[in-house]
Amino acid sequence: MRRPGFSRRMFTTGAAAAALAPAGLAATAVGATAGRASGEPRTSEVKTITLYAEEVGDGQAGYGLEPGQATIPGPLLEMYEGDSYEIELVNNMDVDVSLHVHGVDYTIENDGTAHTDSTVAPGESRVYTWTTHAPGVREDGSVIAGSAGYWNYHDHIVGTPHGTGGLQRGLYGGLIVRREGDLVPDKTFVVVFNDMTTNNLQDGPDFEAVVGERVEFLSITHGEYYHTFHLHGHRWADNRTGLLADENDPSRVIDNKICGPGESFGFQVIAGEHVGPGHWMYHCHVQSHSDMGMAGMLIVADEDGNAPGDPGHHAEPSGDAPRSEEDAHAHH
Amino acid sequence: MRRPGFSRRMFTTGAAAAALAPAGLAATAVGATAGRASGEPRTSEVKTITLYAEEVGDGQAGYGLEPGQATIPGPLLEMYEGDSYEIELVNNMDVDVSLHVHGVDYTIENDGTAHTDSTVAPGESRVYTWTTHAPGVREDGSVIAGSAGYWNYHDHIVGTPHGTGGLQRGLYGGLIVRREGDLVPDKTFVVVFNDMTTNNLQDGPDFEAVVGERVEFLSITHGEYYHTFHLHGHRWADNRTGLLADENDPSRVIDNKICGPGESFGFQVIAGEHVGPGHWMYHCHVQSHSDMGMAGMLIVADEDGNAPGDPGHHAEPSGDAPRSEEDAHAHH
Amino acid sequence: MRRPGFSRRMFTTGAAAAALAPAGLAATAVGATAGRASGEPRTSEVKTITLYAEEVGDGQAGYGLEPGQATIPGPLLEMYEGDSYEIELVNNMDVDVSLHVHGVDYTIENDGTAHTDSTVAPGESRVYTWTTHAPGVREDGSVIAGSAGYWNYHDHIVGTPHGTGGLQRGLYGGLIVRREGDLVPDKTFVVVFNDMTTNNLQDGPDFEAVVGERVEFLSITHGEYYHTFHLHGHRWADNRTGLLADENDPSRVIDNKICGPGESFGFQVIAGEHVGPGHWMYHCHVQSHSDMGMAGMLIVADEDGNAPGDPGHHAEPSGDAPRSEEDAHAHH
Ligand SMILES: [Cu+2]
Ligand SMILES: [Cu+2]
Ligand SMILES: [Cu+2]
Repeated sequence: MRRPGFSRRMFTTGAAAAALAPAGLAATAVGATAGRASGEPRTSEVKTITLYAEEVGDGQAGYGLEPGQATIPGPLLEMYEGDSYEIELVNNMDVDVSLHVHGVDYTIENDGTAHTDSTVAPGESRVYTWTTHAPGVREDGSVIAGSAGYWNYHDHIVGTPHGTGGLQRGLYGGLIVRREGDLVPDKTFVVVFNDMTTNNLQDGPDFEAVVGERVEFLSITHGEYYHTFHLHGHRWADNRTGLLADENDPSRVIDNKICGPGESFGFQVIAGEHVGPGHWMYHCHVQSHSDMGMAGMLIVADEDGNAPGDPGHHAEPSGDAPRSEEDAHAHH
Repeated sequence: MRRPGFSRRMFTTGAAAAALAPAGLAATAVGATAGRASGEPRTSEVKTITLYAEEVGDGQAGYGLEPGQATIPGPLLEMYEGDSYEIELVNNMDVDVSLHVHGVDYTIENDGTAHTDSTVAPGESRVYTWTTHAPGVREDGSVIAGSAGYWNYHDHIVGTPHGTGGLQRGLYGGLIVRREGDLVPDKTFVVVFNDMTTNNLQDGPDFEAVVGERVEFLSITHGEYYHTFHLHGHRWADNRTGLLADENDPSRVIDNKICGPGESFGFQVIAGEHVGPGHWMYHCHVQSHSDMGMAGMLIVADEDGNAPGDPGHHAEPSGDAPRSEEDAHAHH
Repeated sequence: MRRPGFSRRMFTTGAAAAALAPAGLAATAVGATAGRASGEPRTSEVKTITLYAEEVGDGQAGYGLEPGQATIPGPLLEMYEGDSYEIELVNNMDVDVSLHVHGVDYTIENDGTAHTDSTVAPGESRVYTWTTHAPGVREDGSVIAGSAGYWNYHDHIVGTPHGTGGLQRGLYGGLIVRREGDLVPDKTFVVVFNDMTTNNLQDGPDFEAVVGERVEFLSITHGEYYHTFHLHGHRWADNRTGLLADENDPSRVIDNKICGPGESFGFQVIAGEHVGPGHWMYHCHVQSHSDMGMAGMLIVADEDGNAPGDPGHHAEPSGDAPRSEEDAHAHH
């Protein structure tokens, strides 16, 4: 169910862009819960939405909440453990598409794969149902992990039975499942390192925040390559929430994380905490990848709107050009 | 010591196979403990086995518990913290071979490497001794980590001093060290992403389970490439056991994990929990890898033996073929 | 502030080396705290040092604490949460250089990047200020992670705006931030897998220890490739310190870890614990990488100075050469 009163904006981006700071298209985040009185127990929701798969130009494709509104990545979907989604996928493309999700529960009829006949022919539609559950304990004493996590959804049929063509074209999006009590961020930014692009853009989009805002990143990797997500001036815990559960939580605190295709993780930071405002770069730390554009800015402004470190007037790189591509890979 | 009463079967596979569902060769799991009354303290065991290194055809090789019985991967070895293995390696190949193990304790004479002269010439044999220990505390208060883990063993001499040729041919296997109190699974499946193969097969083997069974995966990566292990419809904790230790365990719950050569991890799932029966795919999520066959099925049947989503009658992939290999790698 | 009484030596290495055991150049570790009476609260320090960026021959470059003393990796910097560093970077090279750090706090003017104009022209200098903080709790109850961690610093401007040329030439080093109460090791070894080198050497350096010493590794990855750090006969916890926090710490215990560029992690082991003295190999477990030299020895001697497994008289690799490079990558 769409929440018209929902005011958060997620900067994501449509098709092509050339500069480090492409104009961000706002994608509406769906399903976040807000406004409950503290302590009031939450009631599970059944969220009903329609996703439209469609071309967005330049051979690219996306999912959108309305016809003609597709974005890359698709809408950020959010839910709480216990909620479910009933998603009608309308295929407005001229090839079969599907919807496959990571992390949450679904019966095999909702797998979104060829072998389960759960894909959608052109001009047709079908409903995918996703459910979630809170943590629990089995009879043998083992813990049932809850569904909470930073997940992702994507096509699993365009081009190959693994959706290689669909992913290349942009048929993917983020899914966040929260646990009752998890801190809700002020903003969520979705960064998808997909082949050699960021959100299917040659250069990564910029994101804006104000010092002190609780900013959440959902980092997803797809395609053919591994990448390392690095953020300047901020760091996170390598655990479920990206926040240390308590001061005894032994998780590593990191600012750079390797991910391979299919992986997603997320975290929250307080923008500028301990470091102040600025143009804080995020980038893949594989050198040739950042050099080729897999980088963008988390622009953290102070209360006056200033964010020092403007890329507009920067120094040039110095000295020897790095070894050529051929050279760099010659011994590999 | 082989345990004749041991009834679990591990589906693994011998040399060549062409289809997504090759006939599984049963490899006997060794060393699992069963049948103790609850609460009875466990006595450490010294397990004595013989491993035969031999050719298995097509240029491939494996370890086996009897002459002529080699499999790829080799026998799954299991032990509890405190147990030890005395493994006589009989070299029935025409080149030097060795046995190198991850995770457990051994003196340098048991390293299985060239520089320590701990390899085995053709027609000869030698005993490798592995020991393990339970967690403890040092005098300075620091914790001694126990040996429990999802480990692996492999040749370290064929082809190069790092066993590159031995690994390529199939000289590897899984080792699980359990901690007193760890839950024992009903079945264990070993999946080795080795170069561009799964268990040296072009297509990944299928594994069978029944809804509600406690199924354990041991995922190992070897060779030249990183891979991401993904399982549909099931997920695990990224910690020692793959099961959350308790509801406060902050570990990430994931369904997709990047691993590089030499790494191994494992987890247990309840087959079909929250999702029911079905042909649940596992695969490497690197798109070209799954497209080239690094995929198989966890076939979870209901009590009547039905597992919906039969790959026999599936839809075809749709639309544009993905970019060619050359194309996909052109910018890398 | 340099600590003249500081007696630990870190084996690292200068420019070129051909053998598995190149002569180690001692790099002075900076900033470690020692000699406080137990229980005495620690006072935060402001450490003031000068780093000189300079050529070290063969087209390589490094950071050093005195002119003409540059090493690759640069000096190991250490601090405790609450400490700060004021580092004057003197550029004795003929191109702009900079200093970018991971993990700790700094304002955007200390980012070491082109877009923030925080780089240093040839013959000039500037001060970079890094600060750190202990864990805390925010007003909303969330935990502020402390700065403790195994971090790294590097150039971010030579060659490209991401410092690709500077990293290739050797402009990187390790930074360890400890927490009050963390165990201080007897020795720290820094291993940087940088492109296809180890510390810019074709073959990895050897490190020396005595059975029972508390040995710390700081493993850093830079450049273009992922690697897996593997150590024979020893293992660590995949958490903040590499040591289990307590016996309930659910972290995986591992002996092999994938890392991508920009990542760093560390751990402590007791040399030879449970396994005794020996030439314990460490290496990247990507097969072609170790075969091409990304390997070295942790030489653990007993009290008489003996470390069995001397590489001087080792067996030859056996059997078929592995598939050729072209062959190995043909299907990728
Ligand atoms: Cu990348
Ligand atoms: Cu793969
Ligand atoms: Cu490597």
